[in-house]
Amino acid sequence: MRLMSSYGLVKIVVIGFGNVGRGLAKTIALKNNELTKKLNITVKVVGVVDSKGMALKKDGFTGIELLKLLEQPRSSVGSCEVYGRNYVDIEELYGEVQPDIHVELTPANYDTGEPGLSNIRRALNYGLNVVTANKSPLVKAFNELTALAQVRNVKFKYTGTVMGATPFLRALKWMKAHRVEYLRGILNSTSNYILTLMHEKILSIEDAVKEAQLIGLAESNPSLDIDGLDAAAKLVIISNTLGHSIRFENVERSSLRGIDLRDIMIAIKNGYVYKQVSTLDLVKKRASVNVERIPVNDVLAGVKGAMNAVHIVTDTGEYFFQGKGGGGVETAHTVLNDVLEIALGD
Amino acid sequence: MRLMSSYGLVKIVVIGFGNVGRGLAKTIALKNNELTKKLNITVKVVGVVDSKGMALKKDGFTGIELLKLLEQPRSSVGSCEVYGRNYVDIEELYGEVQPDIHVELTPANYDTGEPGLSNIRRALNYGLNVVTANKSPLVKAFNELTALAQVRNVKFKYTGTVMGATPFLRALKWMKAHRVEYLRGILNSTSNYILTLMHEKILSIEDAVKEAQLIGLAESNPSLDIDGLDAAAKLVIISNTLGHSIRFENVERSSLRGIDLRDIMIAIKNGYVYKQVSTLDLVKKRASVNVERIPVNDVLAGVKGAMNAVHIVTDTGEYFFQGKGGGGVETAHTVLNDVLEIALGD
Repeated sequence: MRLMSSYGLVKIVVIGFGNVGRGLAKTIALKNNELTKKLNITVKVVGVVDSKGMALKKDGFTGIELLKLLEQPRSSVGSCEVYGRNYVDIEELYGEVQPDIHVELTPANYDTGEPGLSNIRRALNYGLNVVTANKSPLVKAFNELTALAQVRNVKFKYTGTVMGATPFLRALKWMKAHRVEYLRGILNSTSNYILTLMHEKILSIEDAVKEAQLIGLAESNPSLDIDGLDAAAKLVIISNTLGHSIRFENVERSSLRGIDLRDIMIAIKNGYVYKQVSTLDLVKKRASVNVERIPVNDVLAGVKGAMNAVHIVTDTGEYFFQGKGGGGVETAHTVLNDVLEIALGD
Repeated sequence: MRLMSSYGLVKIVVIGFGNVGRGLAKTIALKNNELTKKLNITVKVVGVVDSKGMALKKDGFTGIELLKLLEQPRSSVGSCEVYGRNYVDIEELYGEVQPDIHVELTPANYDTGEPGLSNIRRALNYGLNVVTANKSPLVKAFNELTALAQVRNVKFKYTGTVMGATPFLRALKWMKAHRVEYLRGILNSTSNYILTLMHEKILSIEDAVKEAQLIGLAESNPSLDIDGLDAAAKLVIISNTLGHSIRFENVERSSLRGIDLRDIMIAIKNGYVYKQVSTLDLVKKRASVNVERIPVNDVLAGVKGAMNAVHIVTDTGEYFFQGKGGGGVETAHTVLNDVLEIALGD
């Protein structure tokens, strides 16, 4: 494995400066002293890249400098004073700042996996450890990327891609002696939030989507969430992590768009709720993300709002995990936990 | 870190051959082919030690030999044919079989921590990685043992000490960027099983204990479980893992023995249940294992029988984990997951 630059110090570059990237910069700015004290390790951000430019500082941005970077408007980190460059050249960045870990936080693109896929490939080939919360490169090329990390003898961690803020994937990865047979959960926060609104306020899907957009939870195009693509990507990552290759295209899906107010009222009357339920059956080799009507006493029925939960059945017992699915600062903590795990070798 | 004997092979010695030790031998015998295929790694048991003797084989017991060792009566592994020796000399064992990992599965003793404490100390000083499911050495000497492992540059893993079969402690250890503030859970399977029986069958504590003893869940002396010592030990391990030293003696405790049939009936009538609730408050620096009357809609009220669950509150979200607390084969899987994590460096 690539050694850290020096004992007690880990240098990272952050590629992608949206919600999670900004959450990470903020978390490091605010928590670095506490972490250094607790763990004897200091995380230094030596470079930040967005779609149009980059900012770099060889000996690492101070906490105050990181907070100042957050004041830059979106996609203009390259315009910041002293450290900004109005172009993106990641190899140039590597050469100048010599990072230990490449943190890939670009947005997901399920058609091409880009720009994350090329970025991660380049980082691994360069001999860098990689941490990512971007699902699409893993959906496109799980086996290629994990094999490349192994050949290059570097770490490749992606805990934040599933249940963003909850250590489910970390625990699952550790469960190597267990044979996981079946898994069922709520893996997409936005669609769960929308469905919760529809039931609790008796809203149409259009109105519920609007409300989720207002608080910044749903995108202007909510398709990735409500049509099940995001959850399907998570099932692909979970399945591959367990050693079972499945293709994104083969995950059966149904959309929230099929549910109207009348369905909701009838369900409530009869003691049911609609949920976007993700299911992975490794015995029958089937994966699906379906909008299902489940009884109110189902363990998943009580998982409300932006919460995620997953129930897994193994050859040696059943387990249940629940926690917040996403959020910039929450997912940033997951990314930072992966970074610290690499740095501490633990 | 100490390197594995050779690529794709990990040699372990198993110290303690009770429920978990036997569960481990059985799991390795039955699953080794599957694990080798899935992970490119073979776990070889090269030595087994019980209180009176040991059995060793330099190139590792075959699956059939492991299953034969399980046919030996308790505490007589030293009497087995060919490989048995009717004395215990762990240094002699190390010298002859050159293990990579010492697996410590002796029973807990909260007065002295022995024999686990001396065994783990000796193993770490010998330069061996250690995996344990025995709580008492950690309760007695958490800081000493973790510091020793660091100085010797070996791994020391103990996931199986808390919620035996559930990867809670593994996930918690990873959550380094989070500040855990509060934790509340059901950490002792036996007392939870006994309380569940008392509520569901309206049994006195004496009768419920007898029933739990019949199925092998409660010990002949059930004090460790029903007086809260086992759960208190788990809180000490959790707290220390999070960097907060607390002493076993300072965990406030109350016993199940205080609950009689009349309490149970009144509780049921009023919509309550009694649970042994373990609480760790890292802000107020308080730890307790108390028998509490909680409302039936409390998240812990639904955790029944031998199940464990824990709810944690951090500065960045709340999480809930549920799974089986113990069981020989289940905890053996946890131990094996720790072994595989060390072997794969992952």
